[in-house]
This record gives sequence, C-alpha cells and structure tokens, in this order.
Amino acid sequence: MAAESSWFHIPRGSPFSLANIPFGIISTPSSATPRPAIAIGDHALDLRAFASSSGFRDLSVIQPHQAVFSEPTLNAFAALGRPVHSVVRKYIQSVFAADTPYPEVLKANSALQKEALLPLAEVTTHLPFAIGDYTDFFVGLNHAYNCGVLFRGAADALQPNYKHLPVGYHGRASSVVVSGTPIRRPCGQILENPKVEKKTPVFSPSRKLDYELELGAFVCKANKMGEPILIDKAADSIFGLVMMNDWSARDIQSWEYIPLGPFNAKNFGTSISPWVVLMDALEPFKVAGLENSEQVLRYMKEENKENVYDIKLEVDIKSKSGNTGTVTKTSGRHLLFSFPQMLAHHTIGGCPMKVGDLMGSGTISGLEEGSRGCLLEMTENGKVKVSLGGGEERAFLEDGDEVTFTGVCGDDETTLVGFGQCTGRVEPALKLYSD
Amino acid sequence: MAAESSWFHIPRGSPFSLANIPFGIISTPSSATPRPAIAIGDHALDLRAFASSSGFRDLSVIQPHQAVFSEPTLNAFAALGRPVHSVVRKYIQSVFAADTPYPEVLKANSALQKEALLPLAEVTTHLPFAIGDYTDFFVGLNHAYNCGVLFRGAADALQPNYKHLPVGYHGRASSVVVSGTPIRRPCGQILENPKVEKKTPVFSPSRKLDYELELGAFVCKANKMGEPILIDKAADSIFGLVMMNDWSARDIQSWEYIPLGPFNAKNFGTSISPWVVLMDALEPFKVAGLENSEQVLRYMKEENKENVYDIKLEVDIKSKSGNTGTVTKTSGRHLLFSFPQMLAHHTIGGCPMKVGDLMGSGTISGLEEGSRGCLLEMTENGKVKVSLGGGEERAFLEDGDEVTFTGVCGDDETTLVGFGQCTGRVEPALKLYSD
Repeated sequence: MAAESSWFHIPRGSPFSLANIPFGIISTPSSATPRPAIAIGDHALDLRAFASSSGFRDLSVIQPHQAVFSEPTLNAFAALGRPVHSVVRKYIQSVFAADTPYPEVLKANSALQKEALLPLAEVTTHLPFAIGDYTDFFVGLNHAYNCGVLFRGAADALQPNYKHLPVGYHGRASSVVVSGTPIRRPCGQILENPKVEKKTPVFSPSRKLDYELELGAFVCKANKMGEPILIDKAADSIFGLVMMNDWSARDIQSWEYIPLGPFNAKNFGTSISPWVVLMDALEPFKVAGLENSEQVLRYMKEENKENVYDIKLEVDIKSKSGNTGTVTKTSGRHLLFSFPQMLAHHTIGGCPMKVGDLMGSGTISGLEEGSRGCLLEMTENGKVKVSLGGGEERAFLEDGDEVTFTGVCGDDETTLVGFGQCTGRVEPALKLYSD
Repeated sequence: MAAESSWFHIPRGSPFSLANIPFGIISTPSSATPRPAIAIGDHALDLRAFASSSGFRDLSVIQPHQAVFSEPTLNAFAALGRPVHSVVRKYIQSVFAADTPYPEVLKANSALQKEALLPLAEVTTHLPFAIGDYTDFFVGLNHAYNCGVLFRGAADALQPNYKHLPVGYHGRASSVVVSGTPIRRPCGQILENPKVEKKTPVFSPSRKLDYELELGAFVCKANKMGEPILIDKAADSIFGLVMMNDWSARDIQSWEYIPLGPFNAKNFGTSISPWVVLMDALEPFKVAGLENSEQVLRYMKEENKENVYDIKLEVDIKSKSGNTGTVTKTSGRHLLFSFPQMLAHHTIGGCPMKVGDLMGSGTISGLEEGSRGCLLEMTENGKVKVSLGGGEERAFLEDGDEVTFTGVCGDDETTLVGFGQCTGRVEPALKLYSD
C-alpha cells in the first residue's frame, strides 16, 4: 500500500501506522471502564468517546450499532462481521488521512482530539475479547519436527497424523491474560530425575519453564452445533490476529501429557498482545506457508496457496539484572496449515464456535539457528544454553525474566503493520508447603 | 435421613423427593425467559415467581440477593457460596414439609401454587450454568484399565502417571448441551482399516460413535490466577453434580489423539442432566472410592476416605424401532480421585477457576460384566456386540439410537436423591460432499 500521510503525528517506525488500525480494549485513570479503541502511532483513539461525539456521523453502516463502542470487549463489534470491520477501518484511515474528506470529525476538532486521542503510555490495555473457548494448535511444522527429534529421534519425529490434520488441543480460556500480566511459576508434579526415576513424581516448582512463540486468531462468527464452517467461508469467521505466548512447564508436561495431552503444564497462563490486527490489514503480507508433502482432504483444501502471513517475529528475554538477549527471530510464514484450515478442521465434526473464541497456531520456528520459537527446542531440552549477554545464559526461564515478543509486517517505516508487544515477567513460585 | 412427609404430592419413587431439592433452569410456553427453579416430585418450583411473591420473606440471608432468581443461569446463585445454598435448600424443604412453620408461604397460598408449581412435563429445561471452561478427567480406574488392556495389553494398561494424578484434559465448553438436545454423528478423519492402513485417513462419518457415562461437578467459587485451591477448602468450591454423557467418536479419536489428546472426537457434543443435585443432598451417600495403591502427594491428600458417592447409574439404549436395552449398571463410587482432589490438582499450578466451570469425572465402570460405562469397553472395540432385545444388537451407536442415563441415591422410595435423566438421540451425519 502507498505510504499515505496523516495530519496526525505518527512516529516513523511505529507498528501502528495508518496502514494498520488495530483494535483493542482500554481504560484510563480518569475513566476506569474498559472500552474499545484503535491504536495509531503513540496514541489510542478511544472509540467510545469518538462515537459519542458523533465521530461516525459520516458512516451510515455503523449508525445502528454504535453501542458496540461502549462495550467492555470487542465481541459485539466483531459480531458485526468482516464487511463492517473493513468499512470501519477504512473510515478511520480516511479520518486520519492528511487530505481527509471529514476534517470536521477530528482533524479540525481539537476538543475531541483532546478527549479521545490518548497517549498509549497513559492507557491500560485489557483482554480484547471475552474468550469463550480457547484452542491451541500445533501447526508450526519445524517446531513439531525439532521437538519430535528430541524425544523420539528423526525417523519418528512426526506422528502419522501430523501432515493430514492441524493437530490441536482445547486450552484453558480462563488462563488467557493480556500482555503485561505477571506469570507465576507453577508448582506441580515432576520427575526428579527422569532418566533414573520414571514412575514416582515429586512436588516442586517447575524447573523447566518455557515460552512458546505463537500467533492467535479471534473468531468473529458463530456456527451452530452440528454445522461445520466450510473452508471457502472460513476466512469470514476470523476477525484478526494477536501474538501469543503459551507459557509451558516442560517438566510438568512430560510427566502428565500421556495419554490426554498437556494440562497443568499450560493452564497457569497464556499471554496475548493487546491490539488485534485485522485480517484486512494483514492482507498485503500473505505468503505461502510450509509445503505439505501430503494431500489434505477436500474439507481443508484452499484455492489460494498464499494463506499465511509474513510477520517478522522476535523474542527478547530480559533478566532481573537487566541483561537482554534477542533469542529468536522468525516469521509467521512457518506454518503448515492456515487459520481458515484450522477452523474448517475444528468444526468439521460440528463443534460450535462462538464470537470471541481464540485459536493459537502452535509454536513458530524457522529452520535456521536463532529462529526457534521456544527454549525447549533451542536449548535441546536444556543441554545447550542460550546467551542473554553480560555473561548470563539460560536453559529455561528464571524468576524475574521478562519475555517480550514483537511482531511486524512490512519494511517501509511509514507503513508498518505491527502487533506491538506481548510481554510477561516470571514471578517466583508460591511457597505452598512448610517442609 | 428420616422420610419427612410433604403436604405436596410427591410420587413414590420420584428422584426429586423432599430430601433432594436439585436446582435447574426452566422456561415455559407462557414465559420464555429462562430462570431458576427446583424440582420436586413431578413439578418444578419456579424460583423467580416464588421470590417475587415474597416466598423468601422468612429467610433473611437471601433478602439482599433475590435478583439471583431472575437470572437466566445458576451462576449468580452459585456464587453466593455453599452456606447460602445450604440454607436455601433447607428453607425450601421446610416450606414443603407437612408441618411447615411457614404455611402462608405456599401450603396455604393456592394462588402462588398455581403460578409457581409447574408440571415438569410442561417446562423446558436449559443448561443450568453459563459454562466458562469445561475439563474432563479420566479417574474411572476400571474404565482406564479396561481401555488400556484393549490397546496396550494388561502389563502396560495404565500409564505411570495414572495413580499419581487425576489425568484430565480441557474440553470444549461451547459443546456442552442440556439433556434432550439431539447429537449429530460427526464427520472427520478416520483410518478406513486401521490394521492395514496406519497412515492415510479418509473423510467419513464416524463409524464408532459411543457414549461415556460420567458425573459432572459445577464450580461455585473462583480463585485468582496463580493461587491454588487447597485440598481442605476444595469442597467449598463445588456446587453440585449432574450426570454427563461425553459422546465420543472412537475412530476419529484413535487417529487424532497422539500427542495432544482427544479433540474432534469429543467436541461435537457433551450432554448433561438438567437438575444439579447439591452436595448437601448427596452427603448421606458418601462412600470410599477405589483404593489407590500409590501414595498421593500432600496437595491432594484428603482426611476423609469417604469422598465419592454411591450413585446408582444406569444406561439404556433405545433403537429407532423401539427396542430398549439396559446396557450398563454401575455406581458413582468407582472413582480413584474425588472432585475436591480433581479441583486441587487442576489449580495446583495456579489455573484460575470461575463460577460455572464444569469438571467431568471420566467414564465410570464397575468390575463386573454389565457395569462398563461405554461401548468401546463393553464391546471390546466392537468385537462383542451387546443386545438391545428384539434381535437388535450394537457394537457402536446407530442413527436414531437414544441413549438415556439415570442416576439415583438411596433405597427408600420416599426419600430418593436422584438426577432424573440425561438423554440424547443420535442424528444422521450431514452429507457434506456430493461424491
């Protein structure tokens, strides 16, 4: 897209350029009720204030629905459907354009600017959606392969089903939190020394706390139980994407996960970035995903091979003493299945989706060194430590470590479509027993 | 408990005796808004009508909270806490007692009787709770052992973790439906002939549709993320129990479940009985669960060995042509862990529970023939068919089959504490492809 200029100051290199317009939920010290906003440059535009000052007067399609901008979540706005999201985003872009056809709305309305344009540094962000159900997939093929090699060797690295369906599990919706929420190290059952003792666990804080670099997609269209979302309609059901850190306790996981999958290893917290980037904004960055050597069944076949997004993703770990290492650089393109495919598979048996449901991609890893999306994979289950600089290195996360994901599309610093940050700091485990 | 008589006619053998007073959500043709009720004999007492006619005038504890009886779910009532549930149940029992100290409330108030006492045959029941998250455990030891023998042989039937923790997985909350909702046979990926072809699936309606006989527990107390519910407080967080049918597609399950657990094999529908039996009503039926040959870790240790319930459970299958077989008779006692233990384990890493969350026990099977809680186990994965009478037999469920669970505690027909029924009929799969 052409670099359109704005009358409003958007710093060069901002992930929230005029080409983006991501949606989120904010509150402020002077108004504690969470409400919708968009991010633009270093500011949020409070959509409740904007709507109540007739900001949408020139957009007839939204007139009957303005109450959605006073809701504490994006669920009601999302439920209006992708054509409405599209029109609203374009309208907001035109309101901010240098040559806006609607100067009286905001450009020449200093009172509303003062009321509705809030520095990001002064707003609190909240979970963008009330999440009904959360599903986490595992379609980062390189990650799945690398982890498979670690535990089963190269020949059996991938299960026979892996390339035929997006493998996934139901996650814990109540444990999804917004970026910035501290994550307490979980306690649970682990094997003290798995090589020697394979049968009797001890109770302990996790010693193998990890992050997982993922993308998450929010659902904006419900289907009835028993009625699948067909692949050619599946994109209509996806509102937008966030970055997601699916914190994982590897020692709890390896003891508990056979045969029903990960449970307490995952349900202590999953962080998401606060600003949801709409699918329209991501459209120019579509690329082909990973090649699938298997034919997928018809219910998952997509016309267009370009079905994932070239989002540059990065992970930084900052220790308590301030040393910071960029430990992962990869791209959102390293996925074997697209979100529409995940949704088509998820519902093929009739599973009902609701507006606000969240689907995670699974950990995203590239092929090269330095592109692996979690520590388990990067450190080969703790064997090869990764440097944070200043002499500090990590096998797994330590208390006080702050893990920050960034994600951005595009190269032109005036038209970036970015996610901002998804961050969380590890707090020490609770002391539960006196002995 | 002594057989207390009521001025109201409660038929002998009713699961909803004066000793029970289970809670649910109803609507009626003349008032379509769902609202709370209790079941008594062949009737529901509409608590919205009861409360708005000053039915609770003699119960001061509930005065400030009467709005909970106009809610469309039990979440708000449940959130008041177990001491309040206990007082409300006892008060309703005293209102219905033959020698009620409050005759003017209902016994001598024919107008309110007419308004609020509705024949069960004329009310529609709804999901009792807005379910935030649903977790399904697997603590029916006999079931786990029998299934393990089928797939791995007797020596490896149980995984090393099985007796140390309540194995469980996150289920799909959106797919939990109330008894009576039809269940559509799911389509999905299956192996045409798993003995020959282990790697390439076909798309098909499930050919191995099964039921699973379970109990479900509703949570009535939230915990903050990072703060476990300790075992000695866990019972305070459990509102009551329902029967649960965790419908399962065994062929979809066996292909998909490694390594992240069951997904589409389960998320097409889970049925629960509409009336939630309070823990107070079940108290007289506490018994010891299955002996655990392992020492459980301290965070799951309970003082009282009597921590599960002797609920007589039965499964009937009625075919389209009307043949009906009682295929399972067992008891709720066949569990290795109690619901408080499941809850303590679920939250030990800090997972946040919310009011209205649902936990399933896993399939409940006895040791004897005829006591197995699903067809997979009973028919040895389809090998040994089970008779429905009239010459009909089943390996797995066929279209039109209606599966009905009943559950009841007690022997005296005037003081039964029962769950009523949990029923669902199998509808044919959708025809998704024309070829």
